[in-house]
Amino acid sequence: MKNHHSHCLFLFGFVCSLVLVQGSVARCQETPLPLMPLPAHMVMGEGQFAVDGSLGVEIQGYSDGRLVSGKKRFLNILYRETGIPVEGAFEPRQANFVIKTAGAGALVQNLGENESYRLEVSKTGVLLTAPNPLGVLHGLQTFLQLVRLTPQGFVAPAVTIDDEPRFPWRGLMIDSGRHFMPVPVITRNLDGMEAVKMNVFHWHLSDDQGFPVESKLFPLLQGKGSNGQFYTQKQIGEVVQYARERGIRVVPEFDMPCHTTSWLVGYPQLASGKGPYAIADRWGVMDPAIDPTREGTYQFLDRFIGEMAGLFPDAYFHIGGDECDGKEWDANPRIKAFMRAHGMKDNAALQSYFTARVQKLVAGHHKIMEGWDEVLQPDTPRDVVIQSWRGEKALAVAVRQGNRVVLSNGYYIDLNQPAAEHYLVDPLAGDGGTLTPEQKARVLGGEATMWSEYVTGENIDSRIWPRTAAIAERLWSPENVRDVDSMYERLAVVSQELQNYGLEHESSPRFMLERIGGGEVPEPLQVLAAVVQPPRGYMRGGMREYHTFTPLNRFADAVPPESETARKFNALVLIIVAGKATPKQWQEARDWLVLWRNNDAKLQPLLGASDLAAELVPVSRDLSATAAIGLKALDDLEHHRASNMDKSMEALEAAAKPQAVLLDMVVPSVQLLVKAASVQR
Amino acid sequence: MKNHHSHCLFLFGFVCSLVLVQGSVARCQETPLPLMPLPAHMVMGEGQFAVDGSLGVEIQGYSDGRLVSGKKRFLNILYRETGIPVEGAFEPRQANFVIKTAGAGALVQNLGENESYRLEVSKTGVLLTAPNPLGVLHGLQTFLQLVRLTPQGFVAPAVTIDDEPRFPWRGLMIDSGRHFMPVPVITRNLDGMEAVKMNVFHWHLSDDQGFPVESKLFPLLQGKGSNGQFYTQKQIGEVVQYARERGIRVVPEFDMPCHTTSWLVGYPQLASGKGPYAIADRWGVMDPAIDPTREGTYQFLDRFIGEMAGLFPDAYFHIGGDECDGKEWDANPRIKAFMRAHGMKDNAALQSYFTARVQKLVAGHHKIMEGWDEVLQPDTPRDVVIQSWRGEKALAVAVRQGNRVVLSNGYYIDLNQPAAEHYLVDPLAGDGGTLTPEQKARVLGGEATMWSEYVTGENIDSRIWPRTAAIAERLWSPENVRDVDSMYERLAVVSQELQNYGLEHESSPRFMLERIGGGEVPEPLQVLAAVVQPPRGYMRGGMREYHTFTPLNRFADAVPPESETARKFNALVLIIVAGKATPKQWQEARDWLVLWRNNDAKLQPLLGASDLAAELVPVSRDLSATAAIGLKALDDLEHHRASNMDKSMEALEAAAKPQAVLLDMVVPSVQLLVKAASVQR
Repeated sequence: MKNHHSHCLFLFGFVCSLVLVQGSVARCQETPLPLMPLPAHMVMGEGQFAVDGSLGVEIQGYSDGRLVSGKKRFLNILYRETGIPVEGAFEPRQANFVIKTAGAGALVQNLGENESYRLEVSKTGVLLTAPNPLGVLHGLQTFLQLVRLTPQGFVAPAVTIDDEPRFPWRGLMIDSGRHFMPVPVITRNLDGMEAVKMNVFHWHLSDDQGFPVESKLFPLLQGKGSNGQFYTQKQIGEVVQYARERGIRVVPEFDMPCHTTSWLVGYPQLASGKGPYAIADRWGVMDPAIDPTREGTYQFLDRFIGEMAGLFPDAYFHIGGDECDGKEWDANPRIKAFMRAHGMKDNAALQSYFTARVQKLVAGHHKIMEGWDEVLQPDTPRDVVIQSWRGEKALAVAVRQGNRVVLSNGYYIDLNQPAAEHYLVDPLAGDGGTLTPEQKARVLGGEATMWSEYVTGENIDSRIWPRTAAIAERLWSPENVRDVDSMYERLAVVSQELQNYGLEHESSPRFMLERIGGGEVPEPLQVLAAVVQPPRGYMRGGMREYHTFTPLNRFADAVPPESETARKFNALVLIIVAGKATPKQWQEARDWLVLWRNNDAKLQPLLGASDLAAELVPVSRDLSATAAIGLKALDDLEHHRASNMDKSMEALEAAAKPQAVLLDMVVPSVQLLVKAASVQR
Repeated sequence: MKNHHSHCLFLFGFVCSLVLVQGSVARCQETPLPLMPLPAHMVMGEGQFAVDGSLGVEIQGYSDGRLVSGKKRFLNILYRETGIPVEGAFEPRQANFVIKTAGAGALVQNLGENESYRLEVSKTGVLLTAPNPLGVLHGLQTFLQLVRLTPQGFVAPAVTIDDEPRFPWRGLMIDSGRHFMPVPVITRNLDGMEAVKMNVFHWHLSDDQGFPVESKLFPLLQGKGSNGQFYTQKQIGEVVQYARERGIRVVPEFDMPCHTTSWLVGYPQLASGKGPYAIADRWGVMDPAIDPTREGTYQFLDRFIGEMAGLFPDAYFHIGGDECDGKEWDANPRIKAFMRAHGMKDNAALQSYFTARVQKLVAGHHKIMEGWDEVLQPDTPRDVVIQSWRGEKALAVAVRQGNRVVLSNGYYIDLNQPAAEHYLVDPLAGDGGTLTPEQKARVLGGEATMWSEYVTGENIDSRIWPRTAAIAERLWSPENVRDVDSMYERLAVVSQELQNYGLEHESSPRFMLERIGGGEVPEPLQVLAAVVQPPRGYMRGGMREYHTFTPLNRFADAVPPESETARKFNALVLIIVAGKATPKQWQEARDWLVLWRNNDAKLQPLLGASDLAAELVPVSRDLSATAAIGLKALDDLEHHRASNMDKSMEALEAAAKPQAVLLDMVVPSVQLLVKAASVQR
């Protein structure tokens, strides 16, 4: 235990960072292991365990199918990581990696089921123990993250980890309603979830734009509500099993009574309006809604929910309930009469009536209902789980009322926010911080939500990963694990590793840029791609007309949602304007700006050859102009020259606006430089 | 038909090249379309067909499952190519791409079945006609290769193509015996074969190092003859069906009587030696052999062949027959006595007896036997097909004897030869050229052979592709299509396109270099990777000890088998030493050499951190030294300075030798420069 500091540096070469981990030994504080999520407790040991061809992984004592398949997957990923054949010897291997599980897990994975594990890595062996297979699965992933290539070959550092999650509900939602996501897209993302210890796959399975699930009782749901792309019941069973093997529950969502246009194409008798209905092919909030006033509606839903409840063994069943504009209800005299007759003063009351009826149907099929904020009413049964898209206030209201909640506000990964912003959203911060311990216990966790207006199976991985790993850490690791720099360092490592699971978040941007470039990606196109990103929030819909079949094959679809280069440049600029930069850092900033300033001259001649690249003409031009302004400001700063930059600030404000559905992420940094230079005056 | 020249340049920007295509219109000769294999007949039309969201592909008239699945795959690849959703509209699409098939194909694809098609692309529509589904499948692939991104979006040029193959047997052999190749590796390579119109998948399914096929009659074959990795009969059925859908026959090979160690582990009663046997874990020719003298052998093989014949519907059944060293036969007195009793003068006679017996068994199960050169004897039945690994002479002998042949000599893609060398091997050149037309008709075609001593599922794609596409062209296109420069230009395009089929030949080198680099691949490591390659021929086995479970995760395994950069540099040097270089070309050569000379200083500090990179220390150092010599020679040449380069030549000879199982491919070019500079003296 003498040389921890140098051990860690030696193994991982990490930049020093704060103490992040509860119980970690102080001597190693500067270099946390590149784990994500960081474990609850970790004590470094002495030396390292060699990962080589002699590895023998053995399940001792209790075993079952989930452990066996978990071991197989573990060996497969370890092979991807090392290239060393760690299975398939002709002779039995000697066990130096032992898995001991106390006993079976629940037949259907429970919310709150024990997920803890203990991982002991020494020079000579590995011991992984857990109360049930869930902990083992998590521990195996931790080990995979420990493995590193060193001058001595692949090793894992000696360490003892005692780990368990902070929250029992750590979810990822994928929207298969707006763009159909083929099964391989779903399964590889389940692999990614396992890698970062997420345990709930929330499958948003119907929306105005599509009903991609096979119903045998109501075959027109998929028959007329999809374009022929839907999940068969067999496929759904396979996905559920695939998830279970990875310690992941599958919570299906069938959004109602609104977001239901696709239902009404085949079953207009459910509708509040006159129809006829066609599948929506635009984005946004639509008017069509299920009619809550007819008994036939509930007869249909009872049978439908019963059928779906049979497909999804999880105890929870999500009925959506968000974003009713009520227009069809307002326009239907029969519905208005029903509301008057029942003393309902507004559409919220009508929806509340609907939700209460549906909740009874869900409960009748032995499921616990979940819904978005809107389903919460004073008389909502206490077991109903509220998923909060509206935010901490709504969350606190639900919790105080006695309901349990899952936070999604702040975790909308479709909105192209930086990982740091998601990372710092804590389900128990803000209004959540004012809750009593008993109330806090009702905050189950959170969910990253991947709405699919602007993604297809081709680029969805690059929207989900790696940023979702930061959310996974928020939900698993201790509350005080909040260092953004450390997070980004480890996120880069985990992003690389996630490729071993077949995720395409790093390969698909390259693939799509090659398409735009008509072959290999020319260097100047890469330079541009590294500093632009799709606009944040809900701006995109207003920038261009998008519908269901709009090709998502443009630059904005290809580049990742967070520019790593711009983030690093920004960090550099912050040091410079704070007056703390070294000569090397000044030079580095200058080199970047020169690269960008000179890039346009190289890129422009290439853009004309490609229909998909032509829109980049002004984007590229403005990047160069921005960089030129930045260089001037940098010069003025370095030489303490007063500078009048009013014109520059105007130009930068213009350049900050999206073009070709792209934001130039260098602009904010250059604005900082210009402001700093101006202040010198 | 006025502006063909400019049309072609406009569409494809191709460097001028020779007239390559029979019947192509002279006006467009300089810029062949980037098709591979080039079609038999092609006439350019006027304008271009827009590939956009309105595309409607319709099968008119005859249809069947193969056409429907072919259309579906076509749309999927077209989507990968363009990012445009070309299927799945909510409304039926208007047909502007019509497929007309005269009728059904054979229930089991025949050797020599008609594969022709006619593809007519005009400004307004596409018409694809063929006698049967095979031609349609080929025509769809041709169309996919026509599609290009232009300033007007994705288009296919107007063209009329009448196409059919030169040879009816265009194969790829994959060796699943030495390294097991998981099913997805096989299927994605079948996709690649379809893309370049290959029609025979020769599956080498057993060898000394493994028996990866499930036998239900003799379960110890896979049970003791594999490490648990084998194809189930269900999987084999799926692969056969997968291939059929793509117009590909599957010819299984069970190599016998030698290369059979893995059989003998579970069934030592078949052996010529005493045993006990263990699966071979080294490469090379092994002694174990089936005993040809016992009736029990033939009873076993009859049942075994019967079982396998039921799994593989193809009319041909490959029994191997290569490389018997005869040592076990020599050592067995009972076998020697049998040979004397039957008047067999040598082991070749014994093998001949065995082959004749096995041929009758194969014929009894209604299959036509195929074997390597060694199975040919004067009395070999005329229908037996000989696969020639020994070369054109052996091939001509077999053909003259009346047998049909498939050429593999020259197409050994495991030997790291440049594409050009394979490309110029013609089954009808050399001794084949002296054959009569009737004899020539017995030359069925050829097969690329991917032996798997030094590949795993991880890097096999980069050994097969793109070079196999050049062999596919040799076997499909007219004999006079032989321009190497044109081939390389089109090969680069097809290599890019093959990624759309899920092949990993371009992504896996990157992935493996990232592993070696411990994350992202540093620029200097890429520079080195671009100019080295694994050694050619059979040298590799002598350089290091390799066995079945040796990790194939090193630089030599990661880099492609042919250095594209070194090839281009060599072309430049040839121009320079011929005295025909422009100033720009001189400068280009200098830039390359400077890059390489300066690379070592940047790379060395990085190599120490990785066990897998450490062996590159001398490789990198020598590349820099080589480049420095090259720069000196280049200078001397440019300034017509006499130079004494004896020392340099010595250094280059040393640098030409493999290090770390890698060849520095810049060396031969620098040797040329040095020689040219010396000659000036």
